[in-house]
Amino acid sequence: MKNELDTAVWPNEIQALREETKPTYRAVSPELEEILYKPFPVLDHGFVRIVDYMGDDSAIVQAARVSYGKGTKKQTEDKALIHYLMRHRHTTPFEMCEIKFHIKLPIFVAREWVRHRTANINEYSARYSIMDREFYTPTPDVLGKQSLVNRQGRGEILNSEEAEKVLHLLKRDAAQCYDTYEDLLNEKEGGTVFKPGELGLARELARINLPVNAYTQWYWKIDLHNLFHFLSLRADPYAQHEIQVYAKTMLALVEKWVPTACAAFMEYRLKGRSISGKGLEVIKKMIAGDPVTAESIGMGTREWRELMDILERPEK
Amino acid sequence: MKNELDTAVWPNEIQALREETKPTYRAVSPELEEILYKPFPVLDHGFVRIVDYMGDDSAIVQAARVSYGKGTKKQTEDKALIHYLMRHRHTTPFEMCEIKFHIKLPIFVAREWVRHRTANINEYSARYSIMDREFYTPTPDVLGKQSLVNRQGRGEILNSEEAEKVLHLLKRDAAQCYDTYEDLLNEKEGGTVFKPGELGLARELARINLPVNAYTQWYWKIDLHNLFHFLSLRADPYAQHEIQVYAKTMLALVEKWVPTACAAFMEYRLKGRSISGKGLEVIKKMIAGDPVTAESIGMGTREWRELMDILERPEK
Amino acid sequence: MKNELDTAVWPNEIQALREETKPTYRAVSPELEEILYKPFPVLDHGFVRIVDYMGDDSAIVQAARVSYGKGTKKQTEDKALIHYLMRHRHTTPFEMCEIKFHIKLPIFVAREWVRHRTANINEYSARYSIMDREFYTPTPDVLGKQSLVNRQGRGEILNSEEAEKVLHLLKRDAAQCYDTYEDLLNEKEGGTVFKPGELGLARELARINLPVNAYTQWYWKIDLHNLFHFLSLRADPYAQHEIQVYAKTMLALVEKWVPTACAAFMEYRLKGRSISGKGLEVIKKMIAGDPVTAESIGMGTREWRELMDILERPEK
Amino acid sequence: MKNELDTAVWPNEIQALREETKPTYRAVSPELEEILYKPFPVLDHGFVRIVDYMGDDSAIVQAARVSYGKGTKKQTEDKALIHYLMRHRHTTPFEMCEIKFHIKLPIFVAREWVRHRTANINEYSARYSIMDREFYTPTPDVLGKQSLVNRQGRGEILNSEEAEKVLHLLKRDAAQCYDTYEDLLNEKEGGTVFKPGELGLARELARINLPVNAYTQWYWKIDLHNLFHFLSLRADPYAQHEIQVYAKTMLALVEKWVPTACAAFMEYRLKGRSISGKGLEVIKKMIAGDPVTAESIGMGTREWRELMDILERPEK
Repeated sequence: MKNELDTAVWPNEIQALREETKPTYRAVSPELEEILYKPFPVLDHGFVRIVDYMGDDSAIVQAARVSYGKGTKKQTEDKALIHYLMRHRHTTPFEMCEIKFHIKLPIFVAREWVRHRTANINEYSARYSIMDREFYTPTPDVLGKQSLVNRQGRGEILNSEEAEKVLHLLKRDAAQCYDTYEDLLNEKEGGTVFKPGELGLARELARINLPVNAYTQWYWKIDLHNLFHFLSLRADPYAQHEIQVYAKTMLALVEKWVPTACAAFMEYRLKGRSISGKGLEVIKKMIAGDPVTAESIGMGTREWRELMDILERPEK
Repeated sequence: MKNELDTAVWPNEIQALREETKPTYRAVSPELEEILYKPFPVLDHGFVRIVDYMGDDSAIVQAARVSYGKGTKKQTEDKALIHYLMRHRHTTPFEMCEIKFHIKLPIFVAREWVRHRTANINEYSARYSIMDREFYTPTPDVLGKQSLVNRQGRGEILNSEEAEKVLHLLKRDAAQCYDTYEDLLNEKEGGTVFKPGELGLARELARINLPVNAYTQWYWKIDLHNLFHFLSLRADPYAQHEIQVYAKTMLALVEKWVPTACAAFMEYRLKGRSISGKGLEVIKKMIAGDPVTAESIGMGTREWRELMDILERPEK
Repeated sequence: MKNELDTAVWPNEIQALREETKPTYRAVSPELEEILYKPFPVLDHGFVRIVDYMGDDSAIVQAARVSYGKGTKKQTEDKALIHYLMRHRHTTPFEMCEIKFHIKLPIFVAREWVRHRTANINEYSARYSIMDREFYTPTPDVLGKQSLVNRQGRGEILNSEEAEKVLHLLKRDAAQCYDTYEDLLNEKEGGTVFKPGELGLARELARINLPVNAYTQWYWKIDLHNLFHFLSLRADPYAQHEIQVYAKTMLALVEKWVPTACAAFMEYRLKGRSISGKGLEVIKKMIAGDPVTAESIGMGTREWRELMDILERPEK
Repeated sequence: MKNELDTAVWPNEIQALREETKPTYRAVSPELEEILYKPFPVLDHGFVRIVDYMGDDSAIVQAARVSYGKGTKKQTEDKALIHYLMRHRHTTPFEMCEIKFHIKLPIFVAREWVRHRTANINEYSARYSIMDREFYTPTPDVLGKQSLVNRQGRGEILNSEEAEKVLHLLKRDAAQCYDTYEDLLNEKEGGTVFKPGELGLARELARINLPVNAYTQWYWKIDLHNLFHFLSLRADPYAQHEIQVYAKTMLALVEKWVPTACAAFMEYRLKGRSISGKGLEVIKKMIAGDPVTAESIGMGTREWRELMDILERPEK
């Protein structure tokens, strides 16, 4: 879990929201209340903060049973039911919990994010408002060369000289694009296009000059089932690093909210693997001590290698 | 608003949920807290009760502005923004509020209900559990004959003799179907199919004998935008009476929850009407005092009549 | 695959649709054209028939590559890509194929079906039209007693005497409910409630007397990815038998349409299994020949039994 | 309708797709077949082309009736039904038609586009592939200053000197960002960061330097109801110009496909307006010749002005 932002730097509005509590009959997650509204930093200028939530572990049980009251009195029964539901992909009870985030993230990350369509979004409008001068610049340790194994991944880390040159170029272009943006908007002095004090280019047009590493922000609300699906794809090592770090921060927050459901998710989804029909044949033969190869079972070499990785079998 | 159920008849589980409050930093709707968990009766055996909610009027404003804190300090500004959003169909901020109901309803109503797909549902399983002996029997005042005007509506109310016969048949068949259901389940004494104490027919099979006026129940969770859409269609006079009464009960509850958004919904959606291109031409001519008829504007007679109804123009 | 209906019994409208072909530049599935519009019988009165389709195996490849033309020229490359996409759950290319069914099915099956929300539905309206006198009556070989192992399943098959009694009751109640329905509608002679020739009870009310084994019908349109999801849950041995037979008929039809995608689906989804984190630990130990038990790995007995079933390990 | 691209410039792959037709029993839209696969240019480097479609006007009728065959024989009845369905927002029959586009568009347009979530998308991957050197540069006639009336719109057109400066800056920055992108990728000679022939920066990182006016492309598939919703918002004069031109091109194509449904959409949605409860009061008073003002009816001045615009009433 990331360290929380120092209180001193929270916007005043956030502090104001945490000044007093109100009584409610609803399900309350004490651990989540502790950190409600607080921004957790991600990347160089981004953050994730929880703005609201509905339900807790017992809400899953309650919905699964369509019951009048809370779950069972015995916590062990609730836990067993939640694990059963997750294992057998009974997904609807997990849809009964809902969470709302406020997230600041680079545009290129936002573009991957919206592929998850079963969520509600309100994004900061660059047609309506002015974007901040904030751009994502990677840290040198994540500046990887093109991977040869995975066409959409990164491999060897750049040496310091290469990294310096790359970061110089990224910063230079972002700065120039933003300077132009400001010039086009003509809201400050020193513009080259419009006369001082005149209206500048429409915001909806000026913003087309900004690069996709510019930061945007949005409110993003989703139910727990679909959030788990998002996390299973985006906290995965094959996801782009920059979205992974968001997913991992969110996973740590979800753990505070619904610890039992989250443990089940870790066990059956994140740490689990799908094994194909042929993969099961291979495993059964291996357990029986029978010889088996990619050829004998009729499996492609790539898929065979993926299976051996799962089984942690050294390459022959 | 329906009268609340007498406390005495609440299930103990519900009373237990209202014994103590907990502190929360989240948005709280005091009026909704008053009635949280309480079942409001609908039809003869049904109910609607709110199990949880997320957000309030200010959450809509907050999301629309992607802001750090609450809405503006001035309530009038918030109201103006919410009305603007509703009027211009900026729907996403309304998606930022969420509500969860527990509803008991006849199966034929449930079948209309699920046409609204953007909601989360957990329904009581008749494969897994035993259904109650509860069936919807209409009250005589809603027993209408087939409408001649509207093929999917009801017209003239039955006379008392007809009504008595109809209700007798409905009750007789429901009772017989349920008797058979119990006979097939063989969980009570007196069965005719299986020996006493033996396993009966599988529940998932026995239930196929129940009529669609049997009551089922579910947890139903939806965001405010999609709830408004549901209410605009189901609180409409053209909706089947039996789903209308659910929608109207829910609308009264939503009014407690998000009064400003609900007022905007009433004004722009429930009381509002869509006018077609030709309809606007007709209106402009009427205001100008120019003669206009269905023929002169090229509008079908049915559509013309619908328009005159909206404008409350007596038939010529 | 079920035998096709004898041509002689097809409704004339269907035969009319197959009288002439038209030329198209679109992707065409010759095997599907052979059976387009033809109803394939399911259960005693139901059917599945394909009304329209969009795309074929190559459309998946084309979309995955966002390419201008068709997939690669080499079929082996297309196949490898489709298997890769299925294995790694890259689901969006499968969404690029669409299929539209016309299905006749009992209401209780329809109620399970609509839990799949990402589909388009137009259902026959019992508010507007009159339902047929058609009810699902199980064949004796699927009349199972309540299962003790699986609370929502069926176990031992009924003996012939029990079966006869059950079928008698189901038929008797369905007949009586339908007789009442006709009496209430008053569209035929011999009614007991209304005078001959008078309007009967509104259709939307009369239908509430029908049992859930009455047949309804609908148009159902879905993309291939969501159809596979539906099939993975409903062609599963744990699904209720009556929906399984629909899913299996549809699977056989999908195989004609997109044979490569369907083969990948069979291999990675239908025949595949999800193995949990602990399950993988167990497998690795078993392959290494190390001792492992439910207790030593900390796995519940039910989950252990499920895993041993997957690995086809005899109970100790 | 835009002029079609000259045949000479079509990619060979597209021409290959139009070399031969195949016979089908499905519904065929002859007018759409004429232009299937052909790219229609939008903006400076974008296009819209239809890749596949399912259904036609009669498919809407067929689904609404859940019928065995085609719609009625009388075209006038089909037309009346389609208009009725559109007028009364019976939306599901329109969901029974589906269309698939291949679209090339600037990233900032794509970002607005994906707010419509009920569609299937496969986008060109900049993690996997290299982006083209293509950026949207507005034509001088759409270079508007910031609007004072509409915070997210554009007002007065720039004079030629301003326009020249703006376009120079936009082109300069796009060129520099792309030069850097190529430098980072190191796939061509002349790079400044990496040695010739070495692996460059990972594609998924290099692309973060590209501005949002860079062109991307995707396959986009949607049903007719949701497409109409998209078009009603994006062909609207208040939509950003750059997405409007896509919507208008698509609308012209949809008109060829389902002319009756499209005419109904134009009449009841595009040309129609929603009038609020108070708006209807105002109209009724105006028709009756009774005096009415914003104040007397209790309507805000902004809303009053919007209503007067709809009624084409000159400002007093």
